[in-house]
Amino acid sequence: MRIVVLAGGIGGARFLRGLKSAAPDADITVIGNTGDDIHLFGLKVCPDLDTVMYTLGGGIHEEQGWGRADETFAVKGELAAYGVGPEWFGLGDRDFATHIVRTQMIGAGYPLSAVTEALCARWQPGVRLLPMSDDRVETHVLIDDPEADGGRRAVHFQEYWVRLRASVPAHAVVPVGAEQSKPAPGVLEAIAAADVVLFPPSNPIVSVGTILAVPGIREAIADAGVPVVGLSPIVGDAPVRGMADKVLAAVGVESTAAAVAAHYGSGLLDGWLVDTVDAHATAEVEAAGIRCRAVPLMMTDPVATAQMAREALTLAEEVRA
Amino acid sequence: MRIVVLAGGIGGARFLRGLKSAAPDADITVIGNTGDDIHLFGLKVCPDLDTVMYTLGGGIHEEQGWGRADETFAVKGELAAYGVGPEWFGLGDRDFATHIVRTQMIGAGYPLSAVTEALCARWQPGVRLLPMSDDRVETHVLIDDPEADGGRRAVHFQEYWVRLRASVPAHAVVPVGAEQSKPAPGVLEAIAAADVVLFPPSNPIVSVGTILAVPGIREAIADAGVPVVGLSPIVGDAPVRGMADKVLAAVGVESTAAAVAAHYGSGLLDGWLVDTVDAHATAEVEAAGIRCRAVPLMMTDPVATAQMAREALTLAEEVRA
Repeated sequence: MRIVVLAGGIGGARFLRGLKSAAPDADITVIGNTGDDIHLFGLKVCPDLDTVMYTLGGGIHEEQGWGRADETFAVKGELAAYGVGPEWFGLGDRDFATHIVRTQMIGAGYPLSAVTEALCARWQPGVRLLPMSDDRVETHVLIDDPEADGGRRAVHFQEYWVRLRASVPAHAVVPVGAEQSKPAPGVLEAIAAADVVLFPPSNPIVSVGTILAVPGIREAIADAGVPVVGLSPIVGDAPVRGMADKVLAAVGVESTAAAVAAHYGSGLLDGWLVDTVDAHATAEVEAAGIRCRAVPLMMTDPVATAQMAREALTLAEEVRA
Repeated sequence: MRIVVLAGGIGGARFLRGLKSAAPDADITVIGNTGDDIHLFGLKVCPDLDTVMYTLGGGIHEEQGWGRADETFAVKGELAAYGVGPEWFGLGDRDFATHIVRTQMIGAGYPLSAVTEALCARWQPGVRLLPMSDDRVETHVLIDDPEADGGRRAVHFQEYWVRLRASVPAHAVVPVGAEQSKPAPGVLEAIAAADVVLFPPSNPIVSVGTILAVPGIREAIADAGVPVVGLSPIVGDAPVRGMADKVLAAVGVESTAAAVAAHYGSGLLDGWLVDTVDAHATAEVEAAGIRCRAVPLMMTDPVATAQMAREALTLAEEVRA
């Protein structure tokens, strides 16, 4: 079975680990969000791709969910001693090596997709990991700034998310460059060849939404003629992790499992899993033309996560039949 | 007193520490060799500038003579895990931060001289450290290679010095790009304003020689009309440290204190210090028109090194009188 998964960072990576366990023989292609990529200290950092790679490759800091296990911070300390920031983005020494290799390869002319493949040659994530695009797409968030023209200014998603911890109102989320971007090599082909497409419980706006903003990807999924099943990142009207509610508000979407399904829309989504605490939303989702089931959606451990993946694949077969 | 010093790496840095101690009120400008700069992992590494900066700024690994104290090697280990080399050049985590900052600034358009000044704002070396040039000059060494056209090939100085440990015959030493290079801002001005110019016991070919290969620097020193005094890096017919004899042979200069003085020449050099074990060479050097004294030249500790600097300044005053 060929499965295509649109993945953001921590949520996507953990779901993928469960999916590999639930479908060990599946041929899994991951289309990773690169909208939160950022240049730091002259190095290209791809947080979501790396989180997937480290998580599936056994290098992740388990408790934290991002970054490397057994990490040290000598480089970061030295950069601070030089007065070079930002200090709010925590890059460890082991993680720096990944960004150094990536930046060197990009400087040598390799596209991000080729670089990602080279990095994965070490990590052996057991999936084919593709960036959504080799082109630069950068998610910006419009926030209040009394000193800026018009009272607002756009900041890089990481500045909003990591430095500001989404603590200020977001008025818009813009994937800058998306309109001009092209899907990375292999992305459309993988979608066309897929037996099922899954949206993990990743952020529907800044993760899955950014991937869908690359022209051609949304259309390819809608046209693939195979079940498209998503898992709600909202449980009991609150995001399971992260601050998805903040960016949902920015685009006028309620923080409910049903509203996120409606945001994706029945033109794209065939099936939707909500958590058992949101079972009351099932009827509303189904009324909107999306098959819906309520199952436990907390990725508390690998076993629970694998079961979620199994439920998603089961719903896909229901939809197909 | 304004002192200009042409410095390589370890020998130059240690001599400078002695000079600062011997002449605490002097205004010291260091013209640093950049011919052994190398791009590694996409980062610009300036071994000699960094050795001077770390040594005078209190960050050097004392026993080793280069690199940072309390160093760790997480990044290097990870790069090796990615299969990315070279592995023969040992960059530590703290050291990496310096190269990351430098590369980022150069990428942003700053010349190496401005970058060096910015790095020194942290280290406060107590001297003005200038790269010899903002232009790229790269010392190559011609070695035997049976498989190459003509049986020889050029390798980067660091490959010859660090990877091969100067264990193969060197047929030529070529500062590639030197002819087209210009002295960095401030270099010629510092020489013109100097009261004395010193050549520390650095490598006369690949350190001081490379600096002198930048068009204008040798002429400025010769024309400055102030005492130019050097200290022999050869003691008892062998280099005090490093493998200077190998590169001296490549350019047809004997490994003796007198031969190195003659190589610099009386048109450039006014005074020359040889070690007491080479006192026999004094007459030969003086016969060549260079004032010569035999004094202890082993930089065994800061006190001995300061005394060497004092002897150099004393000889400069003798020459001036």
